[in-house]
Amino acid sequence: MARVTLRTKRIRYAADAPPRSREDVLAVEEPLQIRVRSHGEPSTHPPRELSVTMRTPGHDFDLVAGFLVGEGVLRRAEEIVTMRYCAGTDEQGRQTFNVVDVVLAEGVTPPAARQLTTTSACGICGTTSIDEVLKAAPPWGLGDPDAGLIDVALLLALPERLRAAQPLFERTGGVHAAGLFTVTGELLCVREDVGRHNAVDKVLGWALRDGRLPLAGTVLQVSGRASFELVQKARQGGIPMLAAVGAASSLAVELAEQAGLTLVGFSRGTSANAYTHPGRVAAADRRS
Amino acid sequence: MARVTLRTKRIRYAADAPPRSREDVLAVEEPLQIRVRSHGEPSTHPPRELSVTMRTPGHDFDLVAGFLVGEGVLRRAEEIVTMRYCAGTDEQGRQTFNVVDVVLAEGVTPPAARQLTTTSACGICGTTSIDEVLKAAPPWGLGDPDAGLIDVALLLALPERLRAAQPLFERTGGVHAAGLFTVTGELLCVREDVGRHNAVDKVLGWALRDGRLPLAGTVLQVSGRASFELVQKARQGGIPMLAAVGAASSLAVELAEQAGLTLVGFSRGTSANAYTHPGRVAAADRRS
Repeated sequence: MARVTLRTKRIRYAADAPPRSREDVLAVEEPLQIRVRSHGEPSTHPPRELSVTMRTPGHDFDLVAGFLVGEGVLRRAEEIVTMRYCAGTDEQGRQTFNVVDVVLAEGVTPPAARQLTTTSACGICGTTSIDEVLKAAPPWGLGDPDAGLIDVALLLALPERLRAAQPLFERTGGVHAAGLFTVTGELLCVREDVGRHNAVDKVLGWALRDGRLPLAGTVLQVSGRASFELVQKARQGGIPMLAAVGAASSLAVELAEQAGLTLVGFSRGTSANAYTHPGRVAAADRRS
Repeated sequence: MARVTLRTKRIRYAADAPPRSREDVLAVEEPLQIRVRSHGEPSTHPPRELSVTMRTPGHDFDLVAGFLVGEGVLRRAEEIVTMRYCAGTDEQGRQTFNVVDVVLAEGVTPPAARQLTTTSACGICGTTSIDEVLKAAPPWGLGDPDAGLIDVALLLALPERLRAAQPLFERTGGVHAAGLFTVTGELLCVREDVGRHNAVDKVLGWALRDGRLPLAGTVLQVSGRASFELVQKARQGGIPMLAAVGAASSLAVELAEQAGLTLVGFSRGTSANAYTHPGRVAAADRRS
């Protein structure tokens, strides 16, 4: 299988010391091509290229499955008939493990391309995009937004708990992570990747393949910022709360507001901000 | 014009204080659709959709031009005939400023899609991708990699100088930046965006439109990590050195090595690592 880290030489410069040569560990970044075919199509049909993402190898089938969950294509594990690495090789005759072919069950429509990029209407704008995305709603809701899902103390502890579960970050200092927690603080799944979207896709794919969708009663903690796309992916997985260590973007907040998802940003251990539907955060003074 | 920040309500939770409601400033994230047409084509031809990127509004024409520089399509300002916002409106009849139409000069071939995603060969892998990318070399080299381009002290100071030139980060805490510096420390151009690739594209587009390509004798300092794509963009702009505050990925290092570009990572004020072609970093002990 493909490596997830790579050793390399580097020279370290410092303000107060001469340059030193040392070995360093890099997170591997390689392209993964996703190709889909419907089960009904003859196997002689070439599979259709769907996407190429730059990712850290590992949990590739989760990544592919989760990408398709985020795009609104998959909701149940049975909708995947087979998933395998393409048998092709590179110029040196080595299997690259960088192409995954998915065969979807009959009746499951593969997307023509990524949702947003298919929006061909002139007049595309934030509102229009949100409308389009909201129309493609998953078949499950996110539950009561005022139900007091998680305690403040536990919410604030999640970034540290995520970091502690990141072996790749520990070695490279350079990958994102997504961790799925229960509201009692149990870590269900953690995935790391050079791409923060990929880390979330890998969590969603794990959940799909493990028959856990929708992910009611969970919080998705991510290491980076919260963009529109991450909110959309969480929603497609039925995750009622997304918490980010970094900032939230305007469109992430707008989508979370309309989708009924609780969006938390700047979650830094001692404090955190809820931008939408704070009723899921159970502050101590409200529970006492 | 579109806003770059948006005020929103949020509730702040802390370990040692009751929740407080306050206003917060978000970085705006909105889609930008890029459409291209060749000057030779009749104007009745619908422009071809090239890409949709989630970006922070502002410097949109730089973003579009720089995206096309990074893809190897544009090298000179004259290759753009016109660039304008589409006159279309959203459902409320407002101009959205979220679609840019570019007309390319005759003889300039618009890309079918992003380079990497057009790699249809089975057996795609890091090496193959790099080969493909290296084949599409820009018409300029990056100069002598052993020529001692920049002093260590100045290199170490760039992240702080970049941060000081980021008004949007100051207000939102949540955007990436790319700053183009001369080797004597002059800041030529700084751009901020929710997407780190966009920030680099905006710098490249500014340079193209200002007639400055190739950007010999410059260093591009970025706020985040260094991925394959950022190295490729820097190279297409003729920038001999890319310095990142965060980690470098394996493929970024491989491409930089082969392209003759100096790649610096973990540049944190007191120290920095050079992963490739360190001869451009002039350490004090080598100059004395």
